[in-house]
Amino acid sequence: MKDIVTPLSFTCDYNEGAHPEILRRLLETNMLQEPGYGSDRFTQSAIAKIRHATGCPNADVVFLVGGTQTNATVIDGLLPRFGAVIAVETGHIAVHESGAIEHTGHKVITLPQHEGKMHAEDLRNYLIHFFADDTWQHMANPKMVYLSFPTEYGTIYSRHELEEIYAICREYDLLLFVDGARLGYGLASPAADIDLPGLAQVCDVFYIGGTKVGALCGEAVVFPKGNAPQPLLTVVKQHGALLAKGRLLGIQFDTLFTDDLYLRISRHAIDLAMRLQQLFRDKQIPLYIQSPTNQQFPILTQEQMKRLEGKVLYEIWERLSDGRAVTRFATSWATPAEHIQLLAEIL
Amino acid sequence: MKDIVTPLSFTCDYNEGAHPEILRRLLETNMLQEPGYGSDRFTQSAIAKIRHATGCPNADVVFLVGGTQTNATVIDGLLPRFGAVIAVETGHIAVHESGAIEHTGHKVITLPQHEGKMHAEDLRNYLIHFFADDTWQHMANPKMVYLSFPTEYGTIYSRHELEEIYAICREYDLLLFVDGARLGYGLASPAADIDLPGLAQVCDVFYIGGTKVGALCGEAVVFPKGNAPQPLLTVVKQHGALLAKGRLLGIQFDTLFTDDLYLRISRHAIDLAMRLQQLFRDKQIPLYIQSPTNQQFPILTQEQMKRLEGKVLYEIWERLSDGRAVTRFATSWATPAEHIQLLAEIL
Amino acid sequence: MKDIVTPLSFTCDYNEGAHPEILRRLLETNMLQEPGYGSDRFTQSAIAKIRHATGCPNADVVFLVGGTQTNATVIDGLLPRFGAVIAVETGHIAVHESGAIEHTGHKVITLPQHEGKMHAEDLRNYLIHFFADDTWQHMANPKMVYLSFPTEYGTIYSRHELEEIYAICREYDLLLFVDGARLGYGLASPAADIDLPGLAQVCDVFYIGGTKVGALCGEAVVFPKGNAPQPLLTVVKQHGALLAKGRLLGIQFDTLFTDDLYLRISRHAIDLAMRLQQLFRDKQIPLYIQSPTNQQFPILTQEQMKRLEGKVLYEIWERLSDGRAVTRFATSWATPAEHIQLLAEIL
Amino acid sequence: MKDIVTPLSFTCDYNEGAHPEILRRLLETNMLQEPGYGSDRFTQSAIAKIRHATGCPNADVVFLVGGTQTNATVIDGLLPRFGAVIAVETGHIAVHESGAIEHTGHKVITLPQHEGKMHAEDLRNYLIHFFADDTWQHMANPKMVYLSFPTEYGTIYSRHELEEIYAICREYDLLLFVDGARLGYGLASPAADIDLPGLAQVCDVFYIGGTKVGALCGEAVVFPKGNAPQPLLTVVKQHGALLAKGRLLGIQFDTLFTDDLYLRISRHAIDLAMRLQQLFRDKQIPLYIQSPTNQQFPILTQEQMKRLEGKVLYEIWERLSDGRAVTRFATSWATPAEHIQLLAEIL
Repeated sequence: MKDIVTPLSFTCDYNEGAHPEILRRLLETNMLQEPGYGSDRFTQSAIAKIRHATGCPNADVVFLVGGTQTNATVIDGLLPRFGAVIAVETGHIAVHESGAIEHTGHKVITLPQHEGKMHAEDLRNYLIHFFADDTWQHMANPKMVYLSFPTEYGTIYSRHELEEIYAICREYDLLLFVDGARLGYGLASPAADIDLPGLAQVCDVFYIGGTKVGALCGEAVVFPKGNAPQPLLTVVKQHGALLAKGRLLGIQFDTLFTDDLYLRISRHAIDLAMRLQQLFRDKQIPLYIQSPTNQQFPILTQEQMKRLEGKVLYEIWERLSDGRAVTRFATSWATPAEHIQLLAEIL
Repeated sequence: MKDIVTPLSFTCDYNEGAHPEILRRLLETNMLQEPGYGSDRFTQSAIAKIRHATGCPNADVVFLVGGTQTNATVIDGLLPRFGAVIAVETGHIAVHESGAIEHTGHKVITLPQHEGKMHAEDLRNYLIHFFADDTWQHMANPKMVYLSFPTEYGTIYSRHELEEIYAICREYDLLLFVDGARLGYGLASPAADIDLPGLAQVCDVFYIGGTKVGALCGEAVVFPKGNAPQPLLTVVKQHGALLAKGRLLGIQFDTLFTDDLYLRISRHAIDLAMRLQQLFRDKQIPLYIQSPTNQQFPILTQEQMKRLEGKVLYEIWERLSDGRAVTRFATSWATPAEHIQLLAEIL
Repeated sequence: MKDIVTPLSFTCDYNEGAHPEILRRLLETNMLQEPGYGSDRFTQSAIAKIRHATGCPNADVVFLVGGTQTNATVIDGLLPRFGAVIAVETGHIAVHESGAIEHTGHKVITLPQHEGKMHAEDLRNYLIHFFADDTWQHMANPKMVYLSFPTEYGTIYSRHELEEIYAICREYDLLLFVDGARLGYGLASPAADIDLPGLAQVCDVFYIGGTKVGALCGEAVVFPKGNAPQPLLTVVKQHGALLAKGRLLGIQFDTLFTDDLYLRISRHAIDLAMRLQQLFRDKQIPLYIQSPTNQQFPILTQEQMKRLEGKVLYEIWERLSDGRAVTRFATSWATPAEHIQLLAEIL
Repeated sequence: MKDIVTPLSFTCDYNEGAHPEILRRLLETNMLQEPGYGSDRFTQSAIAKIRHATGCPNADVVFLVGGTQTNATVIDGLLPRFGAVIAVETGHIAVHESGAIEHTGHKVITLPQHEGKMHAEDLRNYLIHFFADDTWQHMANPKMVYLSFPTEYGTIYSRHELEEIYAICREYDLLLFVDGARLGYGLASPAADIDLPGLAQVCDVFYIGGTKVGALCGEAVVFPKGNAPQPLLTVVKQHGALLAKGRLLGIQFDTLFTDDLYLRISRHAIDLAMRLQQLFRDKQIPLYIQSPTNQQFPILTQEQMKRLEGKVLYEIWERLSDGRAVTRFATSWATPAEHIQLLAEIL
């Protein structure tokens, strides 16, 4: 233990820089002259690889810088002016984006969450009641459903659940958008029964999160049916989301989609998360939610928290009235395997 | 000449990656765990250095990713809801931002440009006539002036010109915002009679461009009087402009403001631009505009352009009726000095 | 009963035209030439009368055309760009304005409703938790509270309740906006312990609804402390809310505030509503909510509804599982007194 | 002259109330109970009459309250989110709407005006150059052309001119919107070679102005091909443009489109305007523009203006350096014929 200078950190999955391979490629290509705004060769290569990985040869793919920017650009870019988007009450766009979606003019309608997920039944009931109401034209008009995979609680949808929601969307003429800020950690989960090509079939647009899965920054938005709003560059730039040196994003995603790096580093995080889960179980520490992904939510006693003090970093999610707290431990591509062992020793 | 694989390129100042020192620092700090959203130690250090370099110990400083995003966030963040911004007709926000400013709800009012610059007299006349009109309340209300330093034509304002414009702004209760996407190349110009602390005194907000001056991405917005809209993080995030791994921007600007790197690499570009200018003069090639910064606008004949074909890249700015063309040659921090010599040999 | 051609109607309070006195004044003044945009003498006279009636000699008063327009203009006009507005989940802006508030860029945050009202305690708890959260800057920033007087359920706030809420608003630097679409019916209620001058003291802005209280159209917005956003005409016009023939609104409010007409016709509606309430009680018909204003919510059996069929119009509010329905009966300035008697005979 | 209490007024065409027939109908229908939001029988009847008058049996017709509101609702309702609208530099939306169009997020691109009109050639050149520019995706994307009929200078387009512009619009996939705030005065002009059905064929949407042509308020928007944005009521309400008592607009337009009232009263104004024009010619008073509609622009000397002082009201349009002034004299449905004679006597 002696040589650990900084404490072990499980606070979140974007506390380091980028996967070393990404930095190596940035260095290697640094002085090559390439045109701007995504017309560079790296971006074109990354697009080709993502089309292949998603099984969508005609997909439109665009690389944006961050999550909230991506959500605002996609939602505002695809919705009609009067359209609203439906999310669960804990959805990122509903809670943690400083009103960025409303800033573009669209209401976020919220439904109850179930361990962070939307239930198809809730969605259907909402839509049935909405259109049954004589005054529906006086209400914000739902034209999109927003899901996160994984959710804010680390849970994931099964393929069947996505199919059910997508069927309702098509029945009611809503688009389905899947926020994949942590997509890799969802797809790499042992509980996942869907892969990238499968996901591309059950929604209208989704994004492959880079920021939390090995990149310095960057999210790859995929419109599986070539259904991006056009002219796409204009739509993106209008939202302040067009990077002059598009190569920065192109190189990163080109690297992440070479030799399956994106899923390989995601699996690393999930392996450690499963070991974390086992560790908590072994120590009889209850889990607030059975999360199959890289975020784990153990309920710690004051004594346990005291033991971690100064040695292990994590997030307090919610303090309980009995003194205990729901906490969040996140692993990532960067988490050293030995940290699980060290945590076990401390706890 | 044989071993030059790619042609010499003077097309623009953002075709390479980042200054090597920046990449070195990214690599060096890569695995250090730091909190997100700009609360990391690098960002804090960069803020301190910029406060020092601008002579504004109380300045608010925030790092955003790109130029259009910065313009939209600053303008929308500072203007009242009904406020309009005045720019010259060639201003970047008026022409090349896909309507991003209007997308946030604000009209861009345009005045004539003089080699890319706004004349104080035009501004004063506009405001006098505006408020003299009985129906001024029926018109979009000007509350900000937007200038670029250097302008789209590479020209720069003198300190006196800025003071004049700023005085008018204060008289009419307008804010003055200086877009410094290429600020380094302006300040490093032999024609400049103003420095960073000087600039900070004659406007309400400006930004120090990184993307075109050595960074992978990033612009440092400076509110000299601590006059950023608050809560600043909310304002930034609402515009999709908050980077999760704020360290990426912090490290870059911390590096650029260490040992005067920002101005040193700017001076390199300017030295080469002045040599370019001399070269054109030596060859009796007329210059469309006397630009004192890194963008030069020689008027080339068809014969000259033929000679450059396949060997030298540059931009066609405007084709003239006599077959000649106004062209743009840009140098940057990355331009090798020997390229000027090579160009001289070809031309 | 024979001579009733159309059925008795209690469906809502805006099914007729205007109070006859208003039409008389429109006719009388029709050919007088007056300048536009609210600078006519009638508008000026109406402003003076409203300042007097509210006890606010320095109030800014502006006349807009309809409720949603008024809410959008006031909220967007007063909020900072990043500000959100808090309403109860049944608030008009949260449900029945087609997303007009979000269309101007502002999130509507919802709190639970209690018979249509916001509880001060809920508001305080929300704000305490909001600012206690480390990540509050990542959330939409509450800067205004929106209440309705009366609420969607016809209930009204006591002076004490308004004072409590206003105190919280001032403590947390939020503005308080009271939607008075049916203000007259609230103030005329026997349950009201507040009058116009009183209301003006416990909020930052409110409006006096005309459309539902005797006018063809029109709402008078009052900024008690002369605190309207300036330039007000620009703010109003930017929202498409400026009427060229402002006289149309001026004449109506000048009439409504002459000889106390506004409150007199409101009292008429309330008298009849109280008689309705008594009638339901006499018939052992339960009331869904104890509404002290012009909207009454009897729960009718299928048999009772059958009896009314074709003879009496009212709204179905909510169908209950036992076959009964919560219904809404609204009286207005235009309801003939004898209709209550006729209803009694039918029921 | 003795008995003229107020001076003769030619200041504008919205200084009186409504045509007496409209008031008569408002009075007559006042106590009839009708549902709100445009579902009343008067609105339905007015829609039928306008469909007939425009020769468009499938047209969508909606009644809004005022001009700026109509422009903002139509433009924002029909444009894609990223779309810009092209107008001449003197166009109402470009100058006199307090930035209302930009407030909805859309840039107004301006072209030169020729006596208030757009030239097809200017439009074509603009579009050719726009799309010839490599960087067109970085610019606001034109998706609509906005014309006024008559223009701000009282001039009108010929059918041929409209056809030319519409052909360009279709070639470049732009919508054509005609602002008819004073449409009646345009169609009633002896110079007009187009009628309502003709106009409906050469644009995608236009509105029939009521406010300036006999109504208290109100504009009838016509989508000739049934091409209104849907759900239309939602779009309208989202812009704060839905009137609760829609009957107020329905009754007015039903009256204006009964027995050709709209064109009859327009012709009255035009007859008087032509007599005004003749009067100025007879007095050797030059006209700034040859306006064939209800606005006339005589250039008056200081002596002439002195003669009118206190007796005749009109607008100063622009003061000339020689002491003279371009002035505007407007007639309307309400101008008494004898006022022309009286003016002749004074001048």
